[in-house]
Amino acid sequence: MPRDLVLADYVEAERERIVGVLFEWLRIPSISADPDQSASVRKSAEFAADLLRGAGMEHAEVVETGGAPAVYAEWLHAGPSAPTALVYGHHDVQPVDPLHEWHRPPFEPALVDGECRARGAVDDKGQLVFQIEAARGLLQGQGSLPVNLKFLIEGEEEIGSPHFEELLHAERQRLHCDVVVVSDTTMWGPQVPSTCVGLRGLVAFDVTIRTAAGDLHSGSFGGSVPNSAHVVADLVSSLHDPDGLVTLPGFYDDVRPLTNAEQRSLQQLPFDEEEWKRKAGVQRLDGEAGRSTLERVWTRPTCEVVGITAGYGGEGMKTVVPGRANVKVTFRLVPDQDPQRVTEAFRSWLTASVPAGVTVEVEQVGAVAPALTDADHPCVRALCRSIERVWGRAPLLTREGGSGPEEALGRVLEAPVLYLGVGLPDDHYHAPNERMVMDQFWKGLLAAGEIWGEVARAHG
Amino acid sequence: MPRDLVLADYVEAERERIVGVLFEWLRIPSISADPDQSASVRKSAEFAADLLRGAGMEHAEVVETGGAPAVYAEWLHAGPSAPTALVYGHHDVQPVDPLHEWHRPPFEPALVDGECRARGAVDDKGQLVFQIEAARGLLQGQGSLPVNLKFLIEGEEEIGSPHFEELLHAERQRLHCDVVVVSDTTMWGPQVPSTCVGLRGLVAFDVTIRTAAGDLHSGSFGGSVPNSAHVVADLVSSLHDPDGLVTLPGFYDDVRPLTNAEQRSLQQLPFDEEEWKRKAGVQRLDGEAGRSTLERVWTRPTCEVVGITAGYGGEGMKTVVPGRANVKVTFRLVPDQDPQRVTEAFRSWLTASVPAGVTVEVEQVGAVAPALTDADHPCVRALCRSIERVWGRAPLLTREGGSGPEEALGRVLEAPVLYLGVGLPDDHYHAPNERMVMDQFWKGLLAAGEIWGEVARAHG
Repeated sequence: MPRDLVLADYVEAERERIVGVLFEWLRIPSISADPDQSASVRKSAEFAADLLRGAGMEHAEVVETGGAPAVYAEWLHAGPSAPTALVYGHHDVQPVDPLHEWHRPPFEPALVDGECRARGAVDDKGQLVFQIEAARGLLQGQGSLPVNLKFLIEGEEEIGSPHFEELLHAERQRLHCDVVVVSDTTMWGPQVPSTCVGLRGLVAFDVTIRTAAGDLHSGSFGGSVPNSAHVVADLVSSLHDPDGLVTLPGFYDDVRPLTNAEQRSLQQLPFDEEEWKRKAGVQRLDGEAGRSTLERVWTRPTCEVVGITAGYGGEGMKTVVPGRANVKVTFRLVPDQDPQRVTEAFRSWLTASVPAGVTVEVEQVGAVAPALTDADHPCVRALCRSIERVWGRAPLLTREGGSGPEEALGRVLEAPVLYLGVGLPDDHYHAPNERMVMDQFWKGLLAAGEIWGEVARAHG
Repeated sequence: MPRDLVLADYVEAERERIVGVLFEWLRIPSISADPDQSASVRKSAEFAADLLRGAGMEHAEVVETGGAPAVYAEWLHAGPSAPTALVYGHHDVQPVDPLHEWHRPPFEPALVDGECRARGAVDDKGQLVFQIEAARGLLQGQGSLPVNLKFLIEGEEEIGSPHFEELLHAERQRLHCDVVVVSDTTMWGPQVPSTCVGLRGLVAFDVTIRTAAGDLHSGSFGGSVPNSAHVVADLVSSLHDPDGLVTLPGFYDDVRPLTNAEQRSLQQLPFDEEEWKRKAGVQRLDGEAGRSTLERVWTRPTCEVVGITAGYGGEGMKTVVPGRANVKVTFRLVPDQDPQRVTEAFRSWLTASVPAGVTVEVEQVGAVAPALTDADHPCVRALCRSIERVWGRAPLLTREGGSGPEEALGRVLEAPVLYLGVGLPDDHYHAPNERMVMDQFWKGLLAAGEIWGEVARAHG
């Protein structure tokens, strides 16, 4: 570890306590998608507020929304000429099923092989702990920060941030800032630091198909009545054409073509197809014809069905014609697609695609627009210098295929959005055995110690 | 009730006790598909053996198989010139999910509006109780039966009778008979008695698709890797062509065309399409183009997917690319389709249909051949006279779209198979809120009291 980094000694001295804090937070099962865990989500928010307070941040509080609570804190003593930065992250986590695929209980964190293993380790509690601890370290060591600093920690990111934009509008005054720093993304690799300049958007739908009042005996009725499993399969199958393109009418109309510079940047990345397959645990790659893998996951919109549940799924066999089927459909969006337009296209397509006499109900589950940051902004350069100082190498510019409320942050707060994320592509995001590689965590803490000085200089 | 029926007084006198016996049996959750209920299936077998013993049948015993136990009993004192009849039924029941759709607990039988409501009420415990009680009534009232009578009660019918043919071969001597009477089918309607002359066969498969080692984050990997929900949907969707024909190569090769007499018989049935839709609880009919509904369910082979389970099916949303999908696929077969040939065709089709790099596992879950009885056999006429005497109207000849081990019974025991079944099409077979209309039950008991005399006369 380079000794000239401002928080190097702090990390050495506080390592054990910091891991303890992280573990304590990870033990709270703050699954925002699970109504039974709403008390845990609240407990997690209170934990975050306490953590911020303990770090020396002021006015730390749990902020109510129309759904799960967020957390806010600030330190505003850098003086009127200093810039104001806002750190964004989220304290809610993904569901944990299939539970049997976890090697250890998801809410009993442990250090194994230099990794912290738990739900939320990297997404996103771990990435918030390094930001909060960096602020604590700077305030402890120097008594002040080079910037006015605000934290906004959301509690509904994993369910599509349904109340986040409302919150941003309501708290616009208090959240005012010159730059947003998000710690909720990944790097290219432990030896290949990178920073993100764009995220895909997301719209998600829960669709229920009913072909009959209930399940029917396949002997008595099979062959004469619609089968909800067949209807849902036909729907899902017709969402893509043979070239892997999404069939929703007009879906690609608003997709902004890549600039030549963006194309070149993509081609410069040391992409290894075999390594990608290994990380994904797949034996083949797939997707839109004529596109590279990175184009597919970063720059192209997609449709992914995340679940189908129709008829009998238990042990053995049951000879029924299922009367009801559910399918969860998600679309990842890229600039300049509009969630509202895609939602309307999906609803129209669904109505037109379901046979007469079959009922369909659609529930929209959140919408997030895609986000893109200007790579030439002085604050992006400040971030890149901070990362280079810690990792010993200038970061590559990447995008993420994932989605977050970053677009709303940038739009509502009118500030550039930077990404200091230290997750790695095989950290099992949203899947069993989520992890945080601790070496990345400590480097993230050090980089978070560097960035405010760099941002202040860039601003000055 | 006509007073000249041999068991009319018995029914009047024993009504309450018989309902009690039925309820007691229905309280045993003998779900053969559920490994956790294997003790209940055994308890149900023991209950049936006791019931037969109490009715005056001899050598009543639980018969072990490679799976769930069957039950056997006999009464062989009708003399060497009398024919021997074997009654077949099953004591296992279907699973009960979705449990929340039941209006009352499935294993707490109750009489409501002249119906017995419980899992197994009509399929098949109720239909066995009227047979056993008819034997008891005849033996009590007359001290003897006009035929030598055997009962064979299976415990694995609802999972496709995996050990039944083995059992028939092993016990061929003891099961020898001149005619088999099955009580496990339905009638056209309470005022339109009918008897079945054919059943469809069934092959069933449990198919698991794996596209990745686990679920993947749809942001990180979505659009670049195969999605098991899409693969399973493509598979299910391609099982039928736009005319509703099954696409397995050679699937229709062995289907025996209907004779002119069979065509006429079908056309004579008072089929009401609106009534059929109402019974099924559907708003549209569907199926093979150019075929009537009765042709579709009785005389045409079908493919019905009974369940799809892929990815996330819980509350809310999860942004994953599912790595695993399961689909349960059934095929109903008609004469002269061969389960083995269809199985081979399905396995080949599946291997050819799954993309390279996607793994597929197939488990066959039972196979039953289709069955057809010669409508001109003297025993069929004897059965028809018995039904006419009770219902006051000659039965129509129908087929059933369902499947059972009847083909094996007829083939191995070399005897004609008759069907004295009193279920009704809207008895919610295999579905929540299964019922037995008690008027049909009592008539079934009376008809079972008539049939042995008729069979003995036909034989003489």
